[in-house]
Amino acid sequence: MRKIPYIMKKILLITIIIIATLGCKAQQALWGFSQTISPEVHPDKTVTFRMYAPNAEKVQVTGDFLPAVQIDTPQGKADVPGIADLVKNADGVWEFTSDVLSPELYSYSFIVDGQKMPDPSNVYQLRDISTITNVFLVDGNYAEYFKVNDVPHGTVSKVWYDSPTLGKDRRMTIYTPPGYEKGDKRYPVFYLLHGMGGDENAWSELGRATQILDNMIARGEAEPMIVVMTNGNVDMEGAPGETSLGFIQPTTRLPKTMEGSFEQHFPDVVKFVDTNYRTIADKQHRAIAGLSMGGFHSLHISKEYPDMFDYIGLFSAAILPREGSTSPIYDNLDQKLATQFANAPKLYWIAIGDKDFLYDANKEYRKMLDDKGYKYVYRESPDGHIWKNWRIYLTEFLPQLFK
Amino acid sequence: MRKIPYIMKKILLITIIIIATLGCKAQQALWGFSQTISPEVHPDKTVTFRMYAPNAEKVQVTGDFLPAVQIDTPQGKADVPGIADLVKNADGVWEFTSDVLSPELYSYSFIVDGQKMPDPSNVYQLRDISTITNVFLVDGNYAEYFKVNDVPHGTVSKVWYDSPTLGKDRRMTIYTPPGYEKGDKRYPVFYLLHGMGGDENAWSELGRATQILDNMIARGEAEPMIVVMTNGNVDMEGAPGETSLGFIQPTTRLPKTMEGSFEQHFPDVVKFVDTNYRTIADKQHRAIAGLSMGGFHSLHISKEYPDMFDYIGLFSAAILPREGSTSPIYDNLDQKLATQFANAPKLYWIAIGDKDFLYDANKEYRKMLDDKGYKYVYRESPDGHIWKNWRIYLTEFLPQLFK
Repeated sequence: MRKIPYIMKKILLITIIIIATLGCKAQQALWGFSQTISPEVHPDKTVTFRMYAPNAEKVQVTGDFLPAVQIDTPQGKADVPGIADLVKNADGVWEFTSDVLSPELYSYSFIVDGQKMPDPSNVYQLRDISTITNVFLVDGNYAEYFKVNDVPHGTVSKVWYDSPTLGKDRRMTIYTPPGYEKGDKRYPVFYLLHGMGGDENAWSELGRATQILDNMIARGEAEPMIVVMTNGNVDMEGAPGETSLGFIQPTTRLPKTMEGSFEQHFPDVVKFVDTNYRTIADKQHRAIAGLSMGGFHSLHISKEYPDMFDYIGLFSAAILPREGSTSPIYDNLDQKLATQFANAPKLYWIAIGDKDFLYDANKEYRKMLDDKGYKYVYRESPDGHIWKNWRIYLTEFLPQLFK
Repeated sequence: MRKIPYIMKKILLITIIIIATLGCKAQQALWGFSQTISPEVHPDKTVTFRMYAPNAEKVQVTGDFLPAVQIDTPQGKADVPGIADLVKNADGVWEFTSDVLSPELYSYSFIVDGQKMPDPSNVYQLRDISTITNVFLVDGNYAEYFKVNDVPHGTVSKVWYDSPTLGKDRRMTIYTPPGYEKGDKRYPVFYLLHGMGGDENAWSELGRATQILDNMIARGEAEPMIVVMTNGNVDMEGAPGETSLGFIQPTTRLPKTMEGSFEQHFPDVVKFVDTNYRTIADKQHRAIAGLSMGGFHSLHISKEYPDMFDYIGLFSAAILPREGSTSPIYDNLDQKLATQFANAPKLYWIAIGDKDFLYDANKEYRKMLDDKGYKYVYRESPDGHIWKNWRIYLTEFLPQLFK
């Protein structure tokens, strides 16, 4: 190396400089792109959003960091994220600074003259249902669970399993705890299900399940476990873009949703996991929980297969199937619950926000359980049908498992 | 279920309707968001891009589907993606339709009044270096390899390994072939390295390595193998957002890049993989290749540890280290290459585009190899320093491995 020809040294130097400058920043400099900083999380936990849009008439930001507003829909009132106006400065950059925010993982989008769009200055974006949202983290107290901390990390895998019941291969996310690959220890399994329109990525992305598990296991607050995050839309093989359909436009209106197929195929999932992973394959070492539609699935799967799960969590759960559902899964609910609770699960946990549109449905369901004398644990939180609650529920549910 | 109280049925019905309509489309309908379709890949393989921006003065699209243009930089001429102007229609929607495009995975961004931004109508976005780009696929011939087809799928895992050399845990991506979890077969290992500013996600995202491997293994064109995609920036534990630094602004200018540390720590990676996976842990069953900086790493790692790899691929490789590098890794290149080629690797494959800014550096390097009589295979393709070439090189390199 000390004797390389001069010409090679020169080529090298030019090479390195060009490589180092051909990134976005250099292109911005060359082409005059704005180098706006957004979002900027300030030390006082206010957050400034900025966007360069010199000719726009109106730039707004919407997200769960703003107070929710109630709107009228044809089906009644519903809470949606608030909207705030940005103000344009002399350089064509629009700006808005939030109030002091509580520690949390927040999502937001811009709205420019009526067009919803990502913040072009923030590369941290996640798909929630069929929209891209940007995210940012305000640090502190329980938001510490959402961070990648310097602790042992589990492995997160995208795995395809075969479902003879559905006649197709499907994609799921599996978390194995730190040390799984190396050892021969067997682990309990927690099946963690998403809501309508979500997919097998939902819990590991917006749900921060990977970080929550790493951190809670490291602190000794959760048992090391395998966590299986399926895709609840059986019409799809996996998340949009990850299937043989290609880069289709995602939709929240999928066929075969909440009509029994997912519940019917679920033993295929459990069999695959028990066959391919070092599990402890019994009821005492299996948990199932989910949010919204995933809570609905957890309810119906756990009562359909009463010897499968000893820990059940309904997070802001939908309770009853689509009107007119004909699947046998939804027949004889009373009788199936009686069977399930005759050999009572170790934990039947129901959690919901006091502003959730499913609150009354859950209240009715709890009344039914109360009337029968079935034991469950109830957790009521503030707020509505939002990821903040589901992340909190996960941090509260995990420490109760496999004790 | 047939006897649920009327009130619960009613709550249920409202519930389902609200769940089904609270997605983006409903919000768009409620709030008047545009429902633009973009990009639209037409049957004739032209592609229309659209963006709603009623008050913008100029909307452009830039991407690798447009002919590259040569620009002057302080370091000389460089190719950058072309730019095309969209035209506004009466509804405030800007539109541009491309020429007929060859089958390929393409990347693009919009530029609105000078602000580079993602296409708000396309949820398929990848981070390449420090920018978000949208992607779309034009189907046909070798682009078939980039699709998720109905074939057995391998598992893609995000795995943290410990590096005693660097004193930290680091994140990488590991592909295990279909059936890996179930069996007890041992596999050869291919280490596949990214370029400057990329990370452990680069090959599995823009590189479509997962799909290429699934498809080539299914067709019998590649041996089933484990593929290890590391992060070549040793200053980072992993990709931006996946480390203890949180959601930092990514940068292409990382310290400790191409200064020897990555090469020095590489035996830690190999040791971790051989310890935690069912590998065939010998030279005959190990390959290493990479693009640009990853080609540089492959060159220097393979000659530094001459008994480690029997298959080496330099894809548009940088050749020589930063001027003034003091790492012993870059000492005595001649002598180390002599040792490496004394027990010649089964394949030493050099590929580069005829418009690549590293073309001359590679020519000089090949001349050095020729002068010494070291055997290698050379592949020259059209075009420059672009992902299109690296995906092609991968499809050409894989069939040559482990035969």
